[in-house]
Amino acid sequence: MRIARVGGPGREVPVVLDGDRILDLRGVTADVTPEFLEHVLPTVTRSDLPELQGAGELRFGPPITRPTAVICIGMNYAKHAAESGAEPPTEPVVFLKHPNTVVGPDDPVPIPRGSTMTDWEVELGVVIGRRALYLDSPADSPRHIAGYVLANDVSERELQLRTSGGQWSKGKCAPSFTPLGPWLVTPDELDPGAVRLRSHVNGGARQDSRTSDLIFSVAEVVHRLSQFMALEAGDLILTGTPEGVALSGRFPYLRPGDVVELEGEGLGAQRQEMVSAEGTTV
Amino acid sequence: MRIARVGGPGREVPVVLDGDRILDLRGVTADVTPEFLEHVLPTVTRSDLPELQGAGELRFGPPITRPTAVICIGMNYAKHAAESGAEPPTEPVVFLKHPNTVVGPDDPVPIPRGSTMTDWEVELGVVIGRRALYLDSPADSPRHIAGYVLANDVSERELQLRTSGGQWSKGKCAPSFTPLGPWLVTPDELDPGAVRLRSHVNGGARQDSRTSDLIFSVAEVVHRLSQFMALEAGDLILTGTPEGVALSGRFPYLRPGDVVELEGEGLGAQRQEMVSAEGTTV
Repeated sequence: MRIARVGGPGREVPVVLDGDRILDLRGVTADVTPEFLEHVLPTVTRSDLPELQGAGELRFGPPITRPTAVICIGMNYAKHAAESGAEPPTEPVVFLKHPNTVVGPDDPVPIPRGSTMTDWEVELGVVIGRRALYLDSPADSPRHIAGYVLANDVSERELQLRTSGGQWSKGKCAPSFTPLGPWLVTPDELDPGAVRLRSHVNGGARQDSRTSDLIFSVAEVVHRLSQFMALEAGDLILTGTPEGVALSGRFPYLRPGDVVELEGEGLGAQRQEMVSAEGTTV
Repeated sequence: MRIARVGGPGREVPVVLDGDRILDLRGVTADVTPEFLEHVLPTVTRSDLPELQGAGELRFGPPITRPTAVICIGMNYAKHAAESGAEPPTEPVVFLKHPNTVVGPDDPVPIPRGSTMTDWEVELGVVIGRRALYLDSPADSPRHIAGYVLANDVSERELQLRTSGGQWSKGKCAPSFTPLGPWLVTPDELDPGAVRLRSHVNGGARQDSRTSDLIFSVAEVVHRLSQFMALEAGDLILTGTPEGVALSGRFPYLRPGDVVELEGEGLGAQRQEMVSAEGTTV
């Protein structure tokens, strides 16, 4: 099942995408909250839902309400570690983003003031559906996962790497730096180990890899994180980005007017226009 | 004014502490939410509030509802940087904790399974009361601050430093790793540049410093963070810990049964018993 939220920012309506039809979830839940993910989503059946009336040209918001935490796995593809000048990690590398960075998949992204090193990162996102702490093995992970989602882990490399004292979060938290969606797909409809992830900038190819190349698989990531933090329903895990970002030196960084397009097999597509932060409202 | 939340975990009641009296805030707000901090707190007057009935022996919860983000400044005291083997930073070092680490000031803290390097960090916490993005100068910071709070930024050093690939968050996110409170004090009653911070373990002195030694003052921290992230009402900023932690090599790490006591001048006191994570409920 594909869950989405459609409508203007802050006024999104929860829906189920059923082929070309958009089904209204409001009779079942007010929003795609952690409680919905944990207790209600497993019981939803399409045939019970009316079509959304007056859908027309709708904006997609992020497919879940603001995550309780955004937890990122760094350097989780060997070739991206190499292009970043790092060795592949032997233990998962973990950092967090401010949850207020999450926006819709097609919302504009302001390039931070003064930035000349704003970069894209297409990623497979995992949404937790049930608390996980000290899981016994990766085989226990699937029942804690509500679904999967496409994400852009937008990154400002000067803040992340040059003025950070080594802590990456500094370059990861600017407004709108986590475009998410268009939809959450439930685990019965997606194999998280076989997703092709691609990105384009102004139509030119950038990233093109598969999650089969992940150093730590989704099940391993959830299991290992649960050894040192309590994952909760509503948490978003970004599993890392493959090679093909500007940091590699092979492509220019983003500038206002650039268009970033992301695609995830089974996860849908995103399209963001980069804008100047000078013009955004505080 | 001192704001607190008293009662059992998840059932805390918002109150104002007025000398020995505990005043009931429930006629004004259901809880100490971001909306309360931004819009209601500035209008609260003690004389309008009834005394809390049947207070008795009450547990203090964290004085705010779960923060939207927990943002930490690392190495913000020169002597702590030195004891950690680092140079004092020339730009703020920033990392985040999972917001679900926040617990009451006297709640027990489970030492993570297998940990032999769990450490204490007494800190001045800043609670944001109003969105802040691209502030013009540190002089603009105070009007975005709802108040100050005492915090223990509990840290597992093996996860933070040895198996982290350099990203500290990994050792900062275990359950109960951010004891907070007992109260939030409003800015009219506290000078954040003149707070004495102390910690003791099993009665033995550990940290004893003043926030006048901060490399980046509270106003500078808020101003600088606002240049690369949107701070929001309900965000918690931990401003860094002074020298005197176990990482220095001068003191043993924490073990089950140890008692950590923290004190912040004007911020109250905390007392946590370390327990084994083996015995905690998932």
